[in-house]
Amino acid sequence: MNFSISTEVLLNNLLISQKALSTRTPAPYLQGIKLEVYPKEVVLVTSNADISIKLSIKDESLEVHTTGEVLIPGKFFVDIIRKLSGEKTKLSTVENHILRIEAGNSDVTLNLLNVEDYPEIDFVMNDTPIKLESKVMKSIIRQTTFATSAIENRPILTGVNIRVEGEKLIAIATDSFRLSSKVIDIPKNFENMNVVIPGRSLDELFKVLELGLDEILIHLDHKSILFEYGNVLFQSRLLDGNFPETGRLIPVEFPIVVKFNKNDLFVAIDRASLLSQKDGSTAIVKLHLRSDNQVEITSNSPEIGKVTEEVYPIEKAIGVPIKIAFSSKYFLDALKTFNSEEVYVKFTGEIRPFVIEGSEDAGLIQLILPVRTE
Amino acid sequence: MNFSISTEVLLNNLLISQKALSTRTPAPYLQGIKLEVYPKEVVLVTSNADISIKLSIKDESLEVHTTGEVLIPGKFFVDIIRKLSGEKTKLSTVENHILRIEAGNSDVTLNLLNVEDYPEIDFVMNDTPIKLESKVMKSIIRQTTFATSAIENRPILTGVNIRVEGEKLIAIATDSFRLSSKVIDIPKNFENMNVVIPGRSLDELFKVLELGLDEILIHLDHKSILFEYGNVLFQSRLLDGNFPETGRLIPVEFPIVVKFNKNDLFVAIDRASLLSQKDGSTAIVKLHLRSDNQVEITSNSPEIGKVTEEVYPIEKAIGVPIKIAFSSKYFLDALKTFNSEEVYVKFTGEIRPFVIEGSEDAGLIQLILPVRTE
Repeated sequence: MNFSISTEVLLNNLLISQKALSTRTPAPYLQGIKLEVYPKEVVLVTSNADISIKLSIKDESLEVHTTGEVLIPGKFFVDIIRKLSGEKTKLSTVENHILRIEAGNSDVTLNLLNVEDYPEIDFVMNDTPIKLESKVMKSIIRQTTFATSAIENRPILTGVNIRVEGEKLIAIATDSFRLSSKVIDIPKNFENMNVVIPGRSLDELFKVLELGLDEILIHLDHKSILFEYGNVLFQSRLLDGNFPETGRLIPVEFPIVVKFNKNDLFVAIDRASLLSQKDGSTAIVKLHLRSDNQVEITSNSPEIGKVTEEVYPIEKAIGVPIKIAFSSKYFLDALKTFNSEEVYVKFTGEIRPFVIEGSEDAGLIQLILPVRTE
Repeated sequence: MNFSISTEVLLNNLLISQKALSTRTPAPYLQGIKLEVYPKEVVLVTSNADISIKLSIKDESLEVHTTGEVLIPGKFFVDIIRKLSGEKTKLSTVENHILRIEAGNSDVTLNLLNVEDYPEIDFVMNDTPIKLESKVMKSIIRQTTFATSAIENRPILTGVNIRVEGEKLIAIATDSFRLSSKVIDIPKNFENMNVVIPGRSLDELFKVLELGLDEILIHLDHKSILFEYGNVLFQSRLLDGNFPETGRLIPVEFPIVVKFNKNDLFVAIDRASLLSQKDGSTAIVKLHLRSDNQVEITSNSPEIGKVTEEVYPIEKAIGVPIKIAFSSKYFLDALKTFNSEEVYVKFTGEIRPFVIEGSEDAGLIQLILPVRTE
């Protein structure tokens, strides 16, 4: 194996590739980046317990002298390429077990891993991928994954439920105290599907999407999901088990609706959360819609002090006065997902879940369970 | 106590004040900010084991209705003022043990600490402070404190030795593996002094100096040092004990002198350090000045691989070939302190300390002890 390539092109691809690198693993070969060199293409493959990434590099700077494939210790390889100052990097093998890296005034050798040990990874593509704008995929991730459970005792809740139902794609995440639901229209009919993708995989995909390409293709299979994004194939395992049926959790009628400026509401809750009582790790804040149509956000910690915030709804609220208490973190997390400047907070009762919707965020619902206080 | 003030002015002063706030302390009153309100001035006092800060605020936005003094839980106070959105903040006491904070739509109460518990802190000023440009004080700190010892087993080495000797001010720090020495001229004769200031105190002072004022006055006493900087009095305790006599450590004759471009040398050592053998937590790199006047920086880790970097001295080196090994971290730390683009590295022998000097950094010497290999 012997080729040279633009250092910058190699680095940019490695930075994506390393997102699927195992750092701690009982299988040392998963700490490696598999590099396959063809006459006009270099392929990088990485894989860990959750995701596998395959990158095809066909850059005009690529000059291949000898083809071949090697398995390179991933972390060291990326660290070195990141620090090289030469414009071009030459990579070659020495006696089959050493990689030589030459660039500028640097001459580096790295002991290779045994490429025979590397498992064959099947990147599963189908003929009818779902095509989305990349920015739509990014908003699905941004608006749902934060609501997945961080606790592993119900593993299925650490994932985002993705369903294809007719001409809808539905993404749902819940940690059982809050729920995030995003529905988007998809252009034509696909086979109905119902899968659960690890939230961590989607967080990594989100970083890859920073590349800013226009479109992403989603290849859904019953065992895996593969995102095709420019020269990147990003595949994630799916979580086993049934995602809870959440449809009935979301109330359909809301006798009380209050419209707020999102930012005013955010800063009021944020300030109130400073002194609020800790319930486990959760700061509890109270919202009081008064009969004079003003809203008071309060928190109270007998030892420290008390905060009272006045917030003025944009329009006269619909419905009767209500007092409700909730986790300020959950409310703030939910508010952050809206692009709208104005949000509706809809209540059905003091101990019933309430939802937040945005005037400009079609298809997005954030639901939060209130907290009982005295 | 009852006054109002620009929220921004109050916050900016609190952000300085909190640098002397104790976070964990057996004395809860040291977690407080003492606020003294006079007819035309508000004074903030904070103190921890190392430093005490006194700030005088005489802003045109200040309107005092009632004078008084209180002790406010520091962390909560700063957190709240940081998040207020009103332009003006009104502070008043309720029943002597509660602070009420009003700004915009926020109304906050905080339980006060007992101001009687707060110790009287003596800010020791003298009639003949040493006047320095603030940027000179910043460079003294930046160029020396990093070389203090992080380990507490020889407490005196966690400080920076400051000596006034005739018309020189000398700052020295060493952790016994490296030494940093900075000498500056001071305008007129002061009493000779020899004190040791905790490195941590100087790091905090450095942050205060970000305010960017022109001058700083240094009030040196045998028990404390006080920096007067605009409306800030920043006082630090001194370390007890004798700082080691370091004069003889620095060689005076250097048979071998090599002049480098600082940045070229930095990146070469930085790259070589990636794969170098760990000796404890220290990455060891070798420098080889060859007889053809070229310099090779190498590191070698049998398990991982090897790096060879070529560096070209700016001028023909003076002296004979030499091979020397050192901690890459110490060398890189030292290089970062220079403003010069060109640096001299001066050797006396393979197992003798070597020094780095900059062509544009008068008075600055960085000394490093080499490491013996094989």
